[in-house]
Amino acid sequence: MEPFVSKSEAAEIVKVARVRAGTSWAEIAEAIDRPAPWTVAALLGQHPVPQAEAAQVGQMLGLDAAVVEALQAQPTRAGLEESLSDPTIYRFSEALAVYGPAIKELIHEEFGDGIMSAINFKVDVARREDPDGDRVVVTFDGKFLDYRW
Amino acid sequence: MEPFVSKSEAAEIVKVARVRAGTSWAEIAEAIDRPAPWTVAALLGQHPVPQAEAAQVGQMLGLDAAVVEALQAQPTRAGLEESLSDPTIYRFSEALAVYGPAIKELIHEEFGDGIMSAINFKVDVARREDPDGDRVVVTFDGKFLDYRW
Amino acid sequence: MEPFVSKSEAAEIVKVARVRAGTSWAEIAEAIDRPAPWTVAALLGQHPVPQAEAAQVGQMLGLDAAVVEALQAQPTRAGLEESLSDPTIYRFSEALAVYGPAIKELIHEEFGDGIMSAINFKVDVARREDPDGDRVVVTFDGKFLDYRW
Amino acid sequence: MEPFVSKSEAAEIVKVARVRAGTSWAEIAEAIDRPAPWTVAALLGQHPVPQAEAAQVGQMLGLDAAVVEALQAQPTRAGLEESLSDPTIYRFSEALAVYGPAIKELIHEEFGDGIMSAINFKVDVARREDPDGDRVVVTFDGKFLDYRW
Amino acid sequence: MEPFVSKSEAAEIVKVARVRAGTSWAEIAEAIDRPAPWTVAALLGQHPVPQAEAAQVGQMLGLDAAVVEALQAQPTRAGLEESLSDPTIYRFSEALAVYGPAIKELIHEEFGDGIMSAINFKVDVARREDPDGDRVVVTFDGKFLDYRW
Amino acid sequence: MEPFVSKSEAAEIVKVARVRAGTSWAEIAEAIDRPAPWTVAALLGQHPVPQAEAAQVGQMLGLDAAVVEALQAQPTRAGLEESLSDPTIYRFSEALAVYGPAIKELIHEEFGDGIMSAINFKVDVARREDPDGDRVVVTFDGKFLDYRW
Amino acid sequence: MEPFVSKSEAAEIVKVARVRAGTSWAEIAEAIDRPAPWTVAALLGQHPVPQAEAAQVGQMLGLDAAVVEALQAQPTRAGLEESLSDPTIYRFSEALAVYGPAIKELIHEEFGDGIMSAINFKVDVARREDPDGDRVVVTFDGKFLDYRW
Amino acid sequence: MEPFVSKSEAAEIVKVARVRAGTSWAEIAEAIDRPAPWTVAALLGQHPVPQAEAAQVGQMLGLDAAVVEALQAQPTRAGLEESLSDPTIYRFSEALAVYGPAIKELIHEEFGDGIMSAINFKVDVARREDPDGDRVVVTFDGKFLDYRW
Amino acid sequence: MEPFVSKSEAAEIVKVARVRAGTSWAEIAEAIDRPAPWTVAALLGQHPVPQAEAAQVGQMLGLDAAVVEALQAQPTRAGLEESLSDPTIYRFSEALAVYGPAIKELIHEEFGDGIMSAINFKVDVARREDPDGDRVVVTFDGKFLDYRW
Amino acid sequence: MEPFVSKSEAAEIVKVARVRAGTSWAEIAEAIDRPAPWTVAALLGQHPVPQAEAAQVGQMLGLDAAVVEALQAQPTRAGLEESLSDPTIYRFSEALAVYGPAIKELIHEEFGDGIMSAINFKVDVARREDPDGDRVVVTFDGKFLDYRW
Repeated sequence: MEPFVSKSEAAEIVKVARVRAGTSWAEIAEAIDRPAPWTVAALLGQHPVPQAEAAQVGQMLGLDAAVVEALQAQPTRAGLEESLSDPTIYRFSEALAVYGPAIKELIHEEFGDGIMSAINFKVDVARREDPDGDRVVVTFDGKFLDYRW
Repeated sequence: MEPFVSKSEAAEIVKVARVRAGTSWAEIAEAIDRPAPWTVAALLGQHPVPQAEAAQVGQMLGLDAAVVEALQAQPTRAGLEESLSDPTIYRFSEALAVYGPAIKELIHEEFGDGIMSAINFKVDVARREDPDGDRVVVTFDGKFLDYRW
Repeated sequence: MEPFVSKSEAAEIVKVARVRAGTSWAEIAEAIDRPAPWTVAALLGQHPVPQAEAAQVGQMLGLDAAVVEALQAQPTRAGLEESLSDPTIYRFSEALAVYGPAIKELIHEEFGDGIMSAINFKVDVARREDPDGDRVVVTFDGKFLDYRW
Repeated sequence: MEPFVSKSEAAEIVKVARVRAGTSWAEIAEAIDRPAPWTVAALLGQHPVPQAEAAQVGQMLGLDAAVVEALQAQPTRAGLEESLSDPTIYRFSEALAVYGPAIKELIHEEFGDGIMSAINFKVDVARREDPDGDRVVVTFDGKFLDYRW
Repeated sequence: MEPFVSKSEAAEIVKVARVRAGTSWAEIAEAIDRPAPWTVAALLGQHPVPQAEAAQVGQMLGLDAAVVEALQAQPTRAGLEESLSDPTIYRFSEALAVYGPAIKELIHEEFGDGIMSAINFKVDVARREDPDGDRVVVTFDGKFLDYRW
Repeated sequence: MEPFVSKSEAAEIVKVARVRAGTSWAEIAEAIDRPAPWTVAALLGQHPVPQAEAAQVGQMLGLDAAVVEALQAQPTRAGLEESLSDPTIYRFSEALAVYGPAIKELIHEEFGDGIMSAINFKVDVARREDPDGDRVVVTFDGKFLDYRW
Repeated sequence: MEPFVSKSEAAEIVKVARVRAGTSWAEIAEAIDRPAPWTVAALLGQHPVPQAEAAQVGQMLGLDAAVVEALQAQPTRAGLEESLSDPTIYRFSEALAVYGPAIKELIHEEFGDGIMSAINFKVDVARREDPDGDRVVVTFDGKFLDYRW
Repeated sequence: MEPFVSKSEAAEIVKVARVRAGTSWAEIAEAIDRPAPWTVAALLGQHPVPQAEAAQVGQMLGLDAAVVEALQAQPTRAGLEESLSDPTIYRFSEALAVYGPAIKELIHEEFGDGIMSAINFKVDVARREDPDGDRVVVTFDGKFLDYRW
Repeated sequence: MEPFVSKSEAAEIVKVARVRAGTSWAEIAEAIDRPAPWTVAALLGQHPVPQAEAAQVGQMLGLDAAVVEALQAQPTRAGLEESLSDPTIYRFSEALAVYGPAIKELIHEEFGDGIMSAINFKVDVARREDPDGDRVVVTFDGKFLDYRW
Repeated sequence: MEPFVSKSEAAEIVKVARVRAGTSWAEIAEAIDRPAPWTVAALLGQHPVPQAEAAQVGQMLGLDAAVVEALQAQPTRAGLEESLSDPTIYRFSEALAVYGPAIKELIHEEFGDGIMSAINFKVDVARREDPDGDRVVVTFDGKFLDYRW
């Protein structure tokens, strides 16, 4: 059988190839006409990339066919736990530990018993200028789902 | 010595007292003139509540003096891990597992090497109406801090 | 403040009171006109019980007012991990370990990339007679949610 | 000695080869005349595949002899824990955390002290059409075993 | 409501009461006409004790009614993990770590793909005299269950 | 230096070579005149195999010299934890969780304070015919060691 | 026997009594003529407090005799792991994760193979004014111990 | 695609190359005009090394281009947990376990509610001569950040 | 039933009572004519104390009858894991991590395949004077047991 | 760059090479004039081996230059946790679990508050003849370090 690469190997290859090509994530996202967070997450192995978009990224970054094939595969979205201790990612976990129960109370007060979907969901990362130092603004936006039997 | 209550006991008492008093979190937040997420997090033990605000909440909810005292104490913001498996809170962890590395890439692309502060930080919980079902919109907003020696 | 009981204490009290009253779960479910799995899960602390139903169960089982109050409270559906090693529950975990990836493949093949909702969801427990020994048939039935940005 | 492949390597190879061959799991299951969930679980390494069926799958997917040999080997059905955080699989764990104790109570009420076998057991994955969105229906069907000395 | 005791509290009470009464486990087992391992396991909270046997043990050991009631309750057979580091129990875990895979191979060679049931199961503890020092002989005896769809 | 193989690699090689040779564990045990459980455990890396026996097994299964050398090495009997979730092995852990404390009580009642040795120890796996289904009978047989200063 | 309190209970009591008395840690440290970090650590249960100092603190804060007794007891310096997720403490763990291996390399380069003692050790916490925002300066100062047989 | 090396592989390569070249960490730090702790941490993979400095180190140590490239990559500062049990590093964890809560109290007393930044942060490792044995002095120096909504 | 105390409660009571009585462990050991390490371990709940010795200690320390009863009970020697992080105990774990595999090699070289018994075992704690600082000398002394089928 | 081997790879190579050379640990220790426990620990990667001794061992065992280089490298003494479940090593952990708190009490009684150093430390493994079976005698011998600010 022809050799193949796993989705996590493909993610590592994409990260190096992007730097070597001198291409930004934003340029890749624009080229395939998708939001940047979706694009990066998908290229890092968290979403299947449709064939046309995978091929286009492959061309931009000079990826082997086996890498392009891996990008299209259905992911098992498992286990990035080791990266959760990276300080840039950890701060979100810390905020969740501090504010999670408060967020839960306010969701229930506003919507009743239920959850914010993480499937019918999008995320945005933005910069907001501020004289005291610019701010990172990350928005989690998911459909409310009520507990329904 | 007079009896005292811990901050986690105080949080449990506040939750029951609020339901018995028929008061919403929004009403408490308005009464003490603070944002709702801050108010709920603080009353659940994640922030020290200033004396005046603690006294006012105590009066609204009929809390004992030892509970009001506990609300003012400096918290050890430790360990809510058991509540992270609650589905309403878990979805945020799942979104972070799926999108955390992508968020990290985009922060670095936009700001350089650094983090979103979880201390100089605020969070907002809102409802956005949508014909396909209203949406929970949670915004994490923290100052960017660059790695600086 | 009047004393209060937690939802997990209420669950322990309900279990003992039900046996002392000689009442089956099925009879309680029928009395409040709800499916049995929902009823048992809710009385064990996994769902808020509406006021009327909580009061009716309180009367059937002779529960104190504070227990009836606890049944109505919004749960934090956290942490039953210690009960997962009970053999009757463990077999479901084992089946999930053996068949989980296969179930995932078949969901993707039939529906595309997405999940079975555990919120818009119901479960059924039934007996199916079989000459080789009757069978436990447990059905998980949840709305399909596709990954949608 | 001739080279050999492990069952987990064989599972990865089968997944890629199936996509390359453009064959569905349902077609493979039909070809070897086995239920689809059994077929997928077995090809992913959770059951030994009989020689004839392994050979037939090998031919359909163009597998090497060492892969066909691995499919027939007796598995150690150990440790898929990392895949349990995949959202599609996790929802079943979450449902089990919420409803497991209730399922246990109802099994005991209907059958007495005992368990649903996970060995004399079958699972089914089906789509049920629903105007509010089609549903994933997964049925766990195992022989009841009573605690018997 | 009358006070109640949990099954684990009942187990602790039984252990002390047995020593105070100067009664051996063997005498209790004989009095209720059950095998000793079943009797001890049940009184330590791992099986429901039928009403007559529970009452008889209650009388032998002078147990309160709430303890006798607890002995009859359906157990959640969860979590004795902390006692697994006791040296007397640990040696069985060690033997299983050393010989478990070999036992598995021999079960498959003799019976095919399947398991020894731990439900349709009994255990025996015996002394075998030996000039080099008497031996503890523990027999696990469970029905073979073959993997059957 | 000549290449070498680890004991765990040797175990994997032995398992495949045995199937390819069409030889049963019982035949190997008979050939080297050792009990089957000892033989299998040793070949799976849990005991050092004496030189003559290792050579004989190497000849029966066509093993390389480095594999035969590895079989003779002193093992570190560490860590098979991942295989403990295999259902065939797990049932023994489950039985130990349910009956371990009872076994401990009965050992102490019969022998006093001490343990069953897991070193001066043997294990047997047998089939016992039974009209209700044949049974797996596993006997743990170790010298009693009393706590002695 | 007279009632007694554990060292961790004493720590909780001291924390509340100090706030009620309106006394700073610095004032307590000055009163007993010890460095502030030692004083706080000792009163939080990490060091035995000599009798005279314990008595003096007891008088300052109005502590019961059993609390004063507990302050003098030899601690088991075990387990503050749950407080390590507090953001104020966590930042030190994070700095250690990022710089620990570098610190190790530099200790070995400067001193050779060995460690900084955590027993013959002192710590200092200070404020350093800075126009860009004042800084927390924490100094770990321990005797070098070389690996010596 | 050209081969690439990960940051952790690069770290291992740097450590060996430095010893082979007979160069001290201090010399490398001086050559690139950076503090030694920053230099070592960065070369061990905890910071991105700017292009000029990476090239210079590559020349000093005779590193391949792919290693020099890896040194420049943005790190995921994840997971050095296994090295935390090294005695030289562990002593810092132990000191943090013993003094962490005291440090936290003193920071709050001096600065109010907030943290020492681990991002706007520097660390120093020094030797202090002492007649009773020289001492390792490690200084953590980070900007104070107050909890600010 | 009369109240009873657990062995771990008894251990806490003994520790406080010993300090209050101004009695050393050595004096207690001498009074009951047992080695000090055995005496302390037994009074801390790790061995059953014979009736006469338990009574004598009870009289020396003024213990209640329920405590004396608890000292005699058969222990479950489980779980002191939280105390393993105490620095005085941890150093033994660290030494074991560093030297354990070497000790194992030397036992096998001297004795063959087997273990040092931890049951037929004694331990000694002594001071050895040394001009460079007195030394703690702890001797583990157990019977060799060879792996014997 | 020339290839290199890690210290753990070097340890595996040394173990095999020693058996192939038919050399005992005692002979190696004698050849380099070091105590046997230090020698074995160092060759297994827990200490840096000085150049002359490393070269001598390399000659005795026929090791490659890269292995001899690895023996000299400064170790990260991390993580042998998987080998702690080996029965020969585990018995020391068990003895520590049973006697650790007693050893701690006796150290404090004899020396005051402090620890046995694991750095200024040596260990000895010896055989003591005994008519009831020879004994393994392992001595831990470390300098006492008192808690000193």
